[in-house]
Amino acid sequence: MKISIINGPNLNLLGKREPEKYGNTSFDDYYKSLKDLYPGIDFEYFQSNIEGEIINEIQNKGFTYDGIILNAGGYTHTSVAISDAIASVKVPVIEVHVTNIAAREDFRKVSLIAPNCAGSITGFGMDSYRLAVEALLYRKIK
Amino acid sequence: MKISIINGPNLNLLGKREPEKYGNTSFDDYYKSLKDLYPGIDFEYFQSNIEGEIINEIQNKGFTYDGIILNAGGYTHTSVAISDAIASVKVPVIEVHVTNIAAREDFRKVSLIAPNCAGSITGFGMDSYRLAVEALLYRKIK
Amino acid sequence: MKISIINGPNLNLLGKREPEKYGNTSFDDYYKSLKDLYPGIDFEYFQSNIEGEIINEIQNKGFTYDGIILNAGGYTHTSVAISDAIASVKVPVIEVHVTNIAAREDFRKVSLIAPNCAGSITGFGMDSYRLAVEALLYRKIK
Amino acid sequence: MKISIINGPNLNLLGKREPEKYGNTSFDDYYKSLKDLYPGIDFEYFQSNIEGEIINEIQNKGFTYDGIILNAGGYTHTSVAISDAIASVKVPVIEVHVTNIAAREDFRKVSLIAPNCAGSITGFGMDSYRLAVEALLYRKIK
Amino acid sequence: MKISIINGPNLNLLGKREPEKYGNTSFDDYYKSLKDLYPGIDFEYFQSNIEGEIINEIQNKGFTYDGIILNAGGYTHTSVAISDAIASVKVPVIEVHVTNIAAREDFRKVSLIAPNCAGSITGFGMDSYRLAVEALLYRKIK
Amino acid sequence: MKISIINGPNLNLLGKREPEKYGNTSFDDYYKSLKDLYPGIDFEYFQSNIEGEIINEIQNKGFTYDGIILNAGGYTHTSVAISDAIASVKVPVIEVHVTNIAAREDFRKVSLIAPNCAGSITGFGMDSYRLAVEALLYRKIK
Amino acid sequence: MKISIINGPNLNLLGKREPEKYGNTSFDDYYKSLKDLYPGIDFEYFQSNIEGEIINEIQNKGFTYDGIILNAGGYTHTSVAISDAIASVKVPVIEVHVTNIAAREDFRKVSLIAPNCAGSITGFGMDSYRLAVEALLYRKIK
Amino acid sequence: MKISIINGPNLNLLGKREPEKYGNTSFDDYYKSLKDLYPGIDFEYFQSNIEGEIINEIQNKGFTYDGIILNAGGYTHTSVAISDAIASVKVPVIEVHVTNIAAREDFRKVSLIAPNCAGSITGFGMDSYRLAVEALLYRKIK
Amino acid sequence: MKISIINGPNLNLLGKREPEKYGNTSFDDYYKSLKDLYPGIDFEYFQSNIEGEIINEIQNKGFTYDGIILNAGGYTHTSVAISDAIASVKVPVIEVHVTNIAAREDFRKVSLIAPNCAGSITGFGMDSYRLAVEALLYRKIK
Amino acid sequence: MKISIINGPNLNLLGKREPEKYGNTSFDDYYKSLKDLYPGIDFEYFQSNIEGEIINEIQNKGFTYDGIILNAGGYTHTSVAISDAIASVKVPVIEVHVTNIAAREDFRKVSLIAPNCAGSITGFGMDSYRLAVEALLYRKIK
Amino acid sequence: MKISIINGPNLNLLGKREPEKYGNTSFDDYYKSLKDLYPGIDFEYFQSNIEGEIINEIQNKGFTYDGIILNAGGYTHTSVAISDAIASVKVPVIEVHVTNIAAREDFRKVSLIAPNCAGSITGFGMDSYRLAVEALLYRKIK
Amino acid sequence: MKISIINGPNLNLLGKREPEKYGNTSFDDYYKSLKDLYPGIDFEYFQSNIEGEIINEIQNKGFTYDGIILNAGGYTHTSVAISDAIASVKVPVIEVHVTNIAAREDFRKVSLIAPNCAGSITGFGMDSYRLAVEALLYRKIK
Repeated sequence: MKISIINGPNLNLLGKREPEKYGNTSFDDYYKSLKDLYPGIDFEYFQSNIEGEIINEIQNKGFTYDGIILNAGGYTHTSVAISDAIASVKVPVIEVHVTNIAAREDFRKVSLIAPNCAGSITGFGMDSYRLAVEALLYRKIK
Repeated sequence: MKISIINGPNLNLLGKREPEKYGNTSFDDYYKSLKDLYPGIDFEYFQSNIEGEIINEIQNKGFTYDGIILNAGGYTHTSVAISDAIASVKVPVIEVHVTNIAAREDFRKVSLIAPNCAGSITGFGMDSYRLAVEALLYRKIK
Repeated sequence: MKISIINGPNLNLLGKREPEKYGNTSFDDYYKSLKDLYPGIDFEYFQSNIEGEIINEIQNKGFTYDGIILNAGGYTHTSVAISDAIASVKVPVIEVHVTNIAAREDFRKVSLIAPNCAGSITGFGMDSYRLAVEALLYRKIK
Repeated sequence: MKISIINGPNLNLLGKREPEKYGNTSFDDYYKSLKDLYPGIDFEYFQSNIEGEIINEIQNKGFTYDGIILNAGGYTHTSVAISDAIASVKVPVIEVHVTNIAAREDFRKVSLIAPNCAGSITGFGMDSYRLAVEALLYRKIK
Repeated sequence: MKISIINGPNLNLLGKREPEKYGNTSFDDYYKSLKDLYPGIDFEYFQSNIEGEIINEIQNKGFTYDGIILNAGGYTHTSVAISDAIASVKVPVIEVHVTNIAAREDFRKVSLIAPNCAGSITGFGMDSYRLAVEALLYRKIK
Repeated sequence: MKISIINGPNLNLLGKREPEKYGNTSFDDYYKSLKDLYPGIDFEYFQSNIEGEIINEIQNKGFTYDGIILNAGGYTHTSVAISDAIASVKVPVIEVHVTNIAAREDFRKVSLIAPNCAGSITGFGMDSYRLAVEALLYRKIK
Repeated sequence: MKISIINGPNLNLLGKREPEKYGNTSFDDYYKSLKDLYPGIDFEYFQSNIEGEIINEIQNKGFTYDGIILNAGGYTHTSVAISDAIASVKVPVIEVHVTNIAAREDFRKVSLIAPNCAGSITGFGMDSYRLAVEALLYRKIK
Repeated sequence: MKISIINGPNLNLLGKREPEKYGNTSFDDYYKSLKDLYPGIDFEYFQSNIEGEIINEIQNKGFTYDGIILNAGGYTHTSVAISDAIASVKVPVIEVHVTNIAAREDFRKVSLIAPNCAGSITGFGMDSYRLAVEALLYRKIK
Repeated sequence: MKISIINGPNLNLLGKREPEKYGNTSFDDYYKSLKDLYPGIDFEYFQSNIEGEIINEIQNKGFTYDGIILNAGGYTHTSVAISDAIASVKVPVIEVHVTNIAAREDFRKVSLIAPNCAGSITGFGMDSYRLAVEALLYRKIK
Repeated sequence: MKISIINGPNLNLLGKREPEKYGNTSFDDYYKSLKDLYPGIDFEYFQSNIEGEIINEIQNKGFTYDGIILNAGGYTHTSVAISDAIASVKVPVIEVHVTNIAAREDFRKVSLIAPNCAGSITGFGMDSYRLAVEALLYRKIK
Repeated sequence: MKISIINGPNLNLLGKREPEKYGNTSFDDYYKSLKDLYPGIDFEYFQSNIEGEIINEIQNKGFTYDGIILNAGGYTHTSVAISDAIASVKVPVIEVHVTNIAAREDFRKVSLIAPNCAGSITGFGMDSYRLAVEALLYRKIK
Repeated sequence: MKISIINGPNLNLLGKREPEKYGNTSFDDYYKSLKDLYPGIDFEYFQSNIEGEIINEIQNKGFTYDGIILNAGGYTHTSVAISDAIASVKVPVIEVHVTNIAAREDFRKVSLIAPNCAGSITGFGMDSYRLAVEALLYRKIK
């Protein structure tokens, strides 16, 4: 089983950026523990601050992988183009967020990408990624 | 570990109501399989179509349980009172939805209860409940 | 032929409440005259001020009756949950109002339940109920 | 008893236009059956695609008839002038619609003419006209 | 000096329609007294309930007269096309209203035609027309 | 003199819920001291989390008591039905809030019930109830 | 006959300020010619940039004069307090504007004071004041 | 091949009206050159300032022609009725505009008729009509 | 104990202005009876129609008095500057209104100053001032 | 004559992505046929999913080419920066869309780039590009 | 070189008011140090809580000085009249704010005066005034 | 002292693009003169049309420099991601604009990045950059 994890803008700063909000684990450390937890899954990780590179990656993985886990960061609320990319591919895309975006600024209350995702998981810190893996596993089995 | 599952209005019709949207498993059947999956957890289930009874149940469980899994159905988008109840208790409440509410009518895009929940899981069919259990287990361990 | 009439909040005060707006016939008196008018129809009447009890009643009658006539009162403009209940059942639900709600406060201009009803009849005083019966009879015959 | 029926724009295409939405009876055929049903009523029918001609007709009939049944079609949502005409005359005007306009596009949710009408009947197909006749009969008797 | 007076929908009912709002003088009577007051001016009067005929009249008079006095009635608030007609002609158009439209329903607060008019005079009853004549006279002299 | 005090959702948790916002006196304790302060007044207290039960209570007391003091909690901002109930009864209803709702979330800025109340008292902690009693006493004397 | 003319903020700069918009006559010069035109009227002129002084003046003249002509300048669009003052006095107040405010910025499209004025005259340059005098004369005679 | 060209309000003034915006060719001259360009096409031209006559024409041509080219002028932004007419007929309707309406006033940014048209061509001056002919030719061939 | 009462625009007309809304007691008379009621309190009264003078007074009393009772009249809904003044001082400011502003025009529904006040009392006629005194007394004791 | 065609995000998937909406021709195939159709024109094609690269390309071609044909995909509705780029260059830019964007989701109804384009062509499938070439040819000749 | 500094409402409390937001330097102290820094500039300082007095001062200095530095405080967001005053004078006016108003309440996000100012400097504490002096010096030299 | 200057989309065209709005100095020329003015400061300049590259640069400089001067061009109004980047770094970021954005289109009135910046300087042409340097120098000294 092949799962692609895509992180959007500023998520390369996880562990370093506003730790009271995002915790102080770096994504690299978390990613290692996640791979250890699911040795049978073939993960691939990609991060970019550039909207179009995220679209490229969604297109690259979106026809052959078993699932994409996407944290689109700030683009979540502004990118029609990423949302279109998700609608264009065949693979289920799961939206994740580290924080509970509904409890933050008003402009974070609406996600432009959610309508085209298979589902959304928000607010569980880093554990949101593991729950997304669980959700993809269940879809596979079902 | 004690987990309370609370279902709101019309969710007693699951399996019977608009099956192309909500699937055709009844919640009772799903609930049995969920208890089988986690024999070590002490689940309690409550359903009501009455907004205030849901508030009562949140208050009853909200100071002594380890977590509440809440699918507030149509009250998700209209109930300040349920949202206040969630803010009033000490136990983490996780919002779940069977369908991807972001992909439906506009008035379902905003959840009044999400800002006071620990996190939200939406769009994974019945599996949303299991993912919420997983999230509570992880919080417990952490 | 079986028809269920469901009245929502404050409609138990008909005849007593703001008579210049709602007239001074009580619903009980009107109900008697309505049954006399259609002796061949098996009517059942239910009133509640509690949103969830109205949902319960819609679910109870919504799979076996020939039609539901619903005056949801103030819940008309705020209840996603009643609207979901109407969408969940199989029986045609007809929305009625005693007053012309379009000619009153702005927040009464939009009905959340109308999109899921078979049709709406508003502004004819008590006679709105009879017109709804007429509409159900015609559907039956057609 | 004299009743005027006024149909607005595109309703001359009934039976021919989008039959899955509006059915495939032409209004002429329906009109004949309606007159047969109420032989004691003196009906007069008028249709125009021109907003101002509808106003003219409302003014012509609006001081001497017993009632006007008006399906203003697309002008329902845009015409302050027709609404003013209804307010200017003495005869009760009943708004009818063939389809359930609340279940269609957002711009059809608000009727500019409803606040000045005696009442509204929407969503019952052609039968909406008969229900309006019933409503006028009842007003007459009362 | 040639002045065209154009009245829009329902203004043919002046004196007859809602007299508590519009007074009970008919426009014909008022028009006679106005002509008597200004014997040196060549008036021409036109009324129509049809939006496009008002546009025709504005075009007919709009290149050769000294001024147009326009009471567009209900079209004031909805007609981009009349507003465009005013912008297309060379003659100054003065907007008049019998009632103080700012003190009525919200939808009457915005005039679509005002931005293209030379000026507006509202709320003086029938006298609004005379004030518009005065304004045109002054422009002529100036 | 008979005064009914009605508390809405989550107010049974006063003293226990978010004490930094609502203080840590329970309503029962406060209620005792209030009765001691006005021994000549016949108080009756009712609390419910259920919207419709609050409507029932308003109807029960609303024709025979001297006044109702209502803290509708979260229903303040969403309940057309409670607002209708207040409009339907004859007794003056006074809206109270423990906190200054204008200084909290945006959705708490508008009270749907205030337009039908005799007056509103907000932001004085528990003392808001005593001030409401004072207001009712003054109305009685006047 | 006594008429009070009140000019609001920045109108002391007339003739000096943005002459392409407001012309280059000073108000003093215009005022002289206006008094010459109506020797039988007792005019009094007041200008202030201070909102509350305008209110004072409206109160001073508002119970004994025959009319007030008010150009509230920028306060037209922001002052509930001036609007309340107009509603509080007994004398008819006529709103005037030199420019066609409907053809300028969006925030100038709505006048907060218009609903409480007897009528409005906008867009005729300085001549707007004379037209207001004419309107008051007519009211007097009528 | 038969193509109907329908022009809405004020387009009879093309060449005469605001030439800096609309150019100074009259539509008649342009129309001749267009017919010369496509001698094999059977064109028919209709212009009206009356909304309902445009609807009549769309209905007349809308079942038998190969295409309609419609410049609805100011009705573009206000006419639900014309939009309904387009939806009611079988022939493809192409929306054209001489100017780039997106670069003008805000109320011109939304076209009510566009959703029911086959496509839209805006901003190319008179050449917009030729491009619409080209589009219809391609549809025919395809 | 020292209490400052500040009245805003048009409140000098109390008893004289729209008596059906504001009653016919002048504030001076009421003020005398209030001082009689609380002989132990040192009251000081200030009224101005000028926004900035109200700010001056709030600043003058806002660091040394025990409380300010403020009826900001029409400035309630428009003055960020008064609201800032309230936030800048140390003394609790209580907002009062004679009428129930929630039951009047829409623009009176939002108070810009309420978020910075200690609490609000609205709708009790003149008695609103006494209730504010009561509230300040209680704060003092507490 | 030199024409630049620029395609934005996800348009590299044409023919592969949602074929029921976008058809199943790839852009490469279409591009070949387009070049065959106009052998005298020097075309250059560029596609990118990256907003800033589209800006770069507009700047590169925008001072020396004869025209740019731009399908900005999802950036159409969100990119002020692309719109600024179009305003910054000298070459006419024509907006094209394959689908009728006015008939899709609400957020696709407004194009941020249209106001700075020479014109727009939407809804003709791939043929939209050819029509844009035609429009540029005509501008050249004219 | 002559520069006028104008401070609006509550800025007389600088150093005393909410020091965590505005710092604890009084403006008088700051003003002294500013004059020391630019001995060659002729400064004049004015503060008022009264909107109209600020307008007076802008008019007084606005035709003869080299620049005005204006901190309009709370009037920034509500005063069309001050904005009009700025537009009426010839001298460049620079808007300054001590705090970053974009990071505060929503109603502080829009400045009504900014469109008529030469430029804006916000968020640098007291240093905002010095930066404005720098900006005026540069304009002078340029 | 190290200062990073970051320019966003289309600012590479300064001096070339719409010179009546942006002047005709290229940024390179200006940049040289700025470095000459502050020889003791270590400047680094970066420009990109790509949103994500601007984020990269903010992250690169945002933990070690003394300040960032950012002109985000069109992304100012649309980029949550750049705004998040500013919030994520430790270095003060100052927003600058060459033009007075408050005096341009409505969509330029709100800056998404301003709330996370230390301060904003807009409307002083190229001199906005020097003022930002001045502001950073002062922060350093303070």
